[in-house]
Order: sequence, then C-alpha cells, then structure tokens
Amino acid sequence: MNYRMVFYNIGRILLVEAALLTFPAIGAIIYNENTLISFALTIAALTVVGLPAVRKRPKNTAIYAKDGYVIVALTWILMSLFGAMPFYFSGHIPNFVDAFFETVSGFTTTGSTILSNIEAMPKSLLFWRSFTHWIGGMGILVFVIAILPKTESSSMHVMRAEVPGPTVGKLVSKLRASARILYGIYCILTIVEIIMLICGGMPVYDSIVNSFATAGTGGFGVLNNSIEGYNSVYSEMVIAVFMLIFGVNFNIYYMFLIKQGRQAIKNEELRYYLGIVLGSIVLIAVCLANTKYSIGDSIRYAVFQVASIVTTTGFSTANFDTWPVFTKIILVFLMFIGACAGSTGGGIKVSRLMILIKSGLRDIKKAINPRSIETVKVDKHTVEEPVVKSVSVFFATYMILIAVSVLAVSIDGRDIVTTFTSVIACIGNIGPGLGAVGPYGNFADFSIMSKLILSFDMLAGRLELIPMLMLFSPYAWARKYS
Amino acid sequence: MNYRMVFYNIGRILLVEAALLTFPAIGAIIYNENTLISFALTIAALTVVGLPAVRKRPKNTAIYAKDGYVIVALTWILMSLFGAMPFYFSGHIPNFVDAFFETVSGFTTTGSTILSNIEAMPKSLLFWRSFTHWIGGMGILVFVIAILPKTESSSMHVMRAEVPGPTVGKLVSKLRASARILYGIYCILTIVEIIMLICGGMPVYDSIVNSFATAGTGGFGVLNNSIEGYNSVYSEMVIAVFMLIFGVNFNIYYMFLIKQGRQAIKNEELRYYLGIVLGSIVLIAVCLANTKYSIGDSIRYAVFQVASIVTTTGFSTANFDTWPVFTKIILVFLMFIGACAGSTGGGIKVSRLMILIKSGLRDIKKAINPRSIETVKVDKHTVEEPVVKSVSVFFATYMILIAVSVLAVSIDGRDIVTTFTSVIACIGNIGPGLGAVGPYGNFADFSIMSKLILSFDMLAGRLELIPMLMLFSPYAWARKYS
Repeated sequence: MNYRMVFYNIGRILLVEAALLTFPAIGAIIYNENTLISFALTIAALTVVGLPAVRKRPKNTAIYAKDGYVIVALTWILMSLFGAMPFYFSGHIPNFVDAFFETVSGFTTTGSTILSNIEAMPKSLLFWRSFTHWIGGMGILVFVIAILPKTESSSMHVMRAEVPGPTVGKLVSKLRASARILYGIYCILTIVEIIMLICGGMPVYDSIVNSFATAGTGGFGVLNNSIEGYNSVYSEMVIAVFMLIFGVNFNIYYMFLIKQGRQAIKNEELRYYLGIVLGSIVLIAVCLANTKYSIGDSIRYAVFQVASIVTTTGFSTANFDTWPVFTKIILVFLMFIGACAGSTGGGIKVSRLMILIKSGLRDIKKAINPRSIETVKVDKHTVEEPVVKSVSVFFATYMILIAVSVLAVSIDGRDIVTTFTSVIACIGNIGPGLGAVGPYGNFADFSIMSKLILSFDMLAGRLELIPMLMLFSPYAWARKYS
Repeated sequence: MNYRMVFYNIGRILLVEAALLTFPAIGAIIYNENTLISFALTIAALTVVGLPAVRKRPKNTAIYAKDGYVIVALTWILMSLFGAMPFYFSGHIPNFVDAFFETVSGFTTTGSTILSNIEAMPKSLLFWRSFTHWIGGMGILVFVIAILPKTESSSMHVMRAEVPGPTVGKLVSKLRASARILYGIYCILTIVEIIMLICGGMPVYDSIVNSFATAGTGGFGVLNNSIEGYNSVYSEMVIAVFMLIFGVNFNIYYMFLIKQGRQAIKNEELRYYLGIVLGSIVLIAVCLANTKYSIGDSIRYAVFQVASIVTTTGFSTANFDTWPVFTKIILVFLMFIGACAGSTGGGIKVSRLMILIKSGLRDIKKAINPRSIETVKVDKHTVEEPVVKSVSVFFATYMILIAVSVLAVSIDGRDIVTTFTSVIACIGNIGPGLGAVGPYGNFADFSIMSKLILSFDMLAGRLELIPMLMLFSPYAWARKYS
C-alpha cells in the first residue's frame, strides 16, 4: 500500500469536511446558538489533523485498487468520527458512540437515529445532521474528485469503490468532467425541491433540511414525526416524487442532458424500478383501503411510504409498523431491493435484482435443456459471466453479513422483528425498520456493541461491502504492491 | 418429452406405493383399527391408476434431463395425493388439503403438521405418517432405482434431480449397486436406532415410528409434545446422535465400508458440519444456562435442539419459542443451513454454505488484488467455476422463492415471525418454526391457499428447487427433444 498517498488523500478530504462544517457554524451564528464553539472546535481538530497530511505531495502518486478501497473505507470512518464531534462537544448527544452512530447514519444516508426528541435539538445541529446526508449522498469522494485536481488513472479505483451499483458505465470515461456534471444535476435537483417545498408553505429552514435528506435519500427530518408533522398532501407528494427522482440512476439524467433521452427511458433498470414502485403502491393501497383508511388516504400513504422505503430514504407519514402484515412484508422486501444503481439510494439495487432473477431463470432453463446456450441480457446487451457471478456473490455476502450482524445484535435480547429489521435497515441504508425501530421508534436502546455493529453495517452497505470487509484483510495493509 | 416413458415410470412408482401401504394396513389389522378400509381403498386406487401405465413397456426408453425432472416432480406430487387418502378416507383429517399438506410434509421429511392432537389419531395412521418420512428420506426414486431394473443412462438424470446436494460424487458411477448399498446403510442404521430405543425402555411401536422419523430427518412423532413426552435423557441422546448421523453425507459411510475411513474423516463438509453443531450447542447452552435452566438441562436441551434443527428433523424436547432471542436466531440460521449434501436432511446444505463463504472471501481478495488468481477449494480440490456459480444462483433462487412465498402467505395476516418461519420451516424441510408454528404450535390455522403454497415449498426445497420450478416451464412439456 502507498501509505503516503493514502494519508495525503484522506488529509485532503478531512480539510474539505472542515470547510463544509462552516455552513452549520454559520447557522449557529444566524440562530444565535451556543453550538458555535462545538463547530469551531471540530473545524480546528480537522485542520490540525488534515494540514500535516497534505503538507507535502507524495512523489509516488500511484494508487492501486486496494489503496482506493482503503482510502474510501477510512475516509468514511474518519469523517464520521470528526463529524460526530459537534453533537458530542455541544452535549446534545452525551455518549460519543451515539454521536458516532448518528453521524455514520448521516453520511451513509441511512437515517437511523438514536434521538427520541429531535425537536429539542438546536437548529444548527439538525442542519449539520441532514447536511451529512447531502454530503454522503453523492459520495464524498465523487465530490472531492469533482472539485480537486487528481490524475485520471488514480481516480478510477476510488470511483469504482464509491459509485453505488454493479456498473459504473460510460460515465467514468471522462471522470472529472462527469463528476462535475453529476454534482451539478444533484445541486439543481436539490434546489428545485427546496423551492417547491417553500412554495407549498413549508418553512425555509425545514425545506432546506428536508431537501438535503431527500437528495441523499437519508431521511433525517426536523420534526419528531418526520414528514407527517407538516400534514400537507402537497409537501408529501413533492417529497415522494423527489425521493423517487433521487432513486434513479444518475446516468439517466446525464443521458437526457446529452440529448439521448429517448434511449434513457428505454433503460431496463428504470422500467423495473418504476414497475416495482407502481406494483408495491397498488398492493399496499388496496390492502390499506381494506382497513381503517379511506381510499384517498390509502393511496396517499402507500405512495409516500413506498417511495420512501424503496429509495431507502426512510421518511414516514404514518406508523407503518401498525399496518397489516402483508404491507409490512412488502416494505421489508423493498428494504432489501433498494433503489437503482448509480443513485443516492442504498439496498441491493434494482439492477442486481434483475441480474439475479434473470440468471436464476437462465440456470433453470439450462437444467431443463443442458444444451441451451443462453446469456443474461440487460438492455439487450449480454451481461458478462464474471459480472453475473459477482452479483450472486455480492448477494450471498450481503445475506451472510446480515446473518452475522443479526446474531451479534440478538445478544441485546430484543424481539426478533426488531433485531432483524434493525440490521436490514442499517445495511440497506434505509433508516427505520419495524418493531422498536419502526418509524415512531429509534435506535437509542441498543447496547454500545450493537450500535458499533450497526454502524459498521451502514458503512458496509453504503460502500458496497468490499471496502469495509477489506479492512480485516492483512493483505490490504501490506506495504508492497502486487 | 417422452410422455410414454414418463407415464411408465410414474406408474411403477405408484405401484410401489401401493405395496408400501400394505405395512400400515397390516398395522390396522394388528391394532384392530377401522382404518383398514381406508388403506385398502387407497391401495386399490393406486393399482387402478398404476397398472395400465406399466402394462406396456415403451419402445423408446430414452429419458432426457427434463423428463427426469418432470418424473421426479410429478412422482412426489402424485405419491402425496394418493398418500393423503388414508387420512382423508378415514375421516381423521376431514379436509383433503390438510391431508395433502400432512402427506407432503411426510414424504418431503419436513414434519410440519396440521394436527393439534396427535395422540387422538389411530396407531396405523401415525405409522403411515412417519413411514412416509422413512420412504421420502432416501428419495423415493433411489429406492425405486435400487430395487427395479432400469437402464444406467436413464437413471442418471433421475438421480441428479433426486440426490440432495450440489454434487452426486463418485457414488453414481455404478448407480444401481450404489443405491442398494446406500439403502442397506439406511436400513441398518434405522434398525440399530429402533433396538437402542427399545433397550432404553421406549415402547416398541414408538421406537419404530420415531426411528422412521429420525432416519428421514422428518420429525413426525407419536406424542403431542414430541420427544419431550418420554422424559428420558437416554432416549433423547440416542435420537440426537442418530439425527446427527442421518444428517451426514452417506458417501462418508460408504467410504468406511470400502475401508477408506481415514480419508472419510478428513472430509471438509463433515468437519464444517460438526463445527457448526458444536459451536451452536456451546452458544445455546451458555445462553440457556443464564436463564431458568440448570447447566445440565441447558446442555441437554441445546444438544437435542441443535441436532434436531441442523439436521432439519424438527423433533423437540422444549418449547424453544420461549427461549432467549439469541438462541432463536441461531436456530433460525441452522434452519437455513441444514445438513450435509447427500444426507436425508434438508436446508441449503453445509457444502453450499462452504462454497458460498469461500467464493465470497475469494471475490473480496480479488477485489483487493485484481491480479490474484485464486480458486475455491473443497477437500483440497478446485471447485469448478460453473459449480461455484450454480451454488450462488441456487442460494439466490432459494431466497427469492422464500420472498415470494412469504409475501403470499402474509395475506393470511398472521404475525411476521410466524409468516417468515413457516416458509423457512417448509422450504428447508424442518418442521416447526417460531411463533404460532413453534414446536408447541401447528400449521392448522393457515388458509387453504397458504397450505398449498407451503406444500409447494416443501416439495421445492426437498427436490433442490429445479424440478418443481420446472413444472411452470412450457419447454418442459414440449414433445420434441432438443
């Protein structure tokens, strides 16, 4: 491993975090909150650690795949450790593990919280809390790549570890330019959402914070009862639509920009995604309409909750933990599936599910007719076998990580539904689960150990497993190249 | 598809079932029960259907893979339909779907029951109920292959669909002889268990019926509270050891027979299996010892329940549904894992888990170091890539089938834990799950629809997915070869 280059890159990112912390710090000044000192201290700490690391540019700038993975994993962990400081220093989250959990949940755009009374928090801290979603959303490193100069080749590996989903696509051909374009789309969409929410009568501060949480598909809100508190169909539908928009592969928007819109809407993953969304809404709405809800409310709740869960945002407008089991099962499945690859959403991703189902069907066909030669096709192109295999292995690894985590968290002795869904909600970067971690619950009552395991799961899920699991490999830390 | 040959083979098997039904019929005579007429009617029905099918041997005896799969799938379904008749005709299970569910559960060696009062059933019916486990245990078709003459080549495909586990191994090289040897081992082990149970003071009838259920790793007992009712540490330990024995790949015993015992105990799957068993016993015993149980009882219950669940038998000596969550999670994982390939147990199988974990680790290594060329090795031999891929696809298909089934069963509106574990218990051929289908519960309260879905899952799990899923493929029913 090229240790100097790893330190250099991490150092740069920590300085970026220091710069980003000036926004909530300014918020603290505007709202005249005593959190200012906590932000200042954190900025100072980041500068003290970051500056020496970037003082000298390493002579050997070569970065290999494993270095890229280590940079990504360590960056997210360190940003979360530093990002937790304002919560801890200000005394609003007195336990540092809780503050770390909350910040990991922020940067990974999970939205699982240990707070039971969100409204009691200072505005500047809530701003920072949702701002971490926004920063995490497009990936801190894509962000860094877009604004800081780097060599093309070395960025490639970082990009591969960072961009969610099985394929990075043609987008990386001109990496830095593309990253700027992605970033531009991300900013513009966020601004449009903020304006639309303000037009609907939501307070400016709330509109900004909620839009950050929507863009990152995070789910940290301002009110104790999430979006339900605004009791506005307009706001709910705006947020639902934007959640779905941020759950789409950003390549699609890029293709519209370069006037390939006709091809973009033929995208198979997009069609599966919209199909899953529509199917789930219909099933849940029909089921809800057979309970205490009116038809109108059934559709309203179904649209919002499906959008929120499939995009792994985690906002809520109703306590779906009390809904019929059938609807809860659908929501749990959506937690597994997640959004499109190349979006800010988490989960296994729709494209992986497509490949899993298609390769499963293909293998069954092959069993029936051993002489059949069929390939898995997506968008009319053959998916190469190593990709098919890696998707299956990803899925198996994902399930095994869930299994190991569930076992470890079960030591806390909470009920099975809470134990399982807390892990699923964290590894899929969703936020709420069912039971005690349902939309009206929180993660406060887990043990320190469980909170650390769940933090690991959030990071592992966000970084597509490999980078975090790699930290346990002695090979990753070896100094020599191979 | 060679329809004539398919009919011919199924016909033969139905006649074998008619012959097997004479055993419970004799039981009905011995115990002077009025079930005799029901058995006689069923035997008559099987003969009427079976005889015309075997009247003329088809000229074209060629059987292709898909024909083999169709034969296997239809055989199990038809045997279950006919096997359900004694329960239905006698009026002891008045609903035919219930009787079908119970018989599928028997033949697939699952052991899930719709009976709430087992002890109220006539002895001859309970004998037949557990006898179906014993018949199903080694696979009806291995049975047929062992005693009926068939061409070598055509049997191959049937064997492939029938023998549980990813690889059939060298055992099939001389198929018919091997099947007879397997069958001999199976019979001898069953007889030894019967004798050992009788020596411990268990009634002869109970010893025979419980041994049938052990050998098939099924779990249908005689008493309402399973093995707990005997309240005998000796009987429990005998059954626990035999459950574990029947959960081992039968190749191991075969190797001992041909004096390759030293190589047999080096078998990697066997070591993983014993490791999983031992680890689970220790974890559960330690956890139980911290509750109301004494250390002795903790070990006793842990040994029995781990053996029962990992081998997918499903006997119980305690209501593990009331145990701490940590122990329940371990048991649920054991339900997924199951026993060794080539045993009478169900689940995903230890060998598949080994390959999944190893290929996962390999892929992580490859991600770190793209130039590494590593293969997945089992027993020091490289596992070929198509096998690795098929294991991953099997796992994904297994999970997707669980997902679809859970969604369908959730329409019943039962709690999440009951809904999930009922499907897992059926597809893994375990028997009891948690919640309302726990060791003290039963499957009676599910809807007709759910019972049929769970029956399908039991068959799909038992036949390693492909044959049952294939029934939905129009290609499988096409007359022409390819």
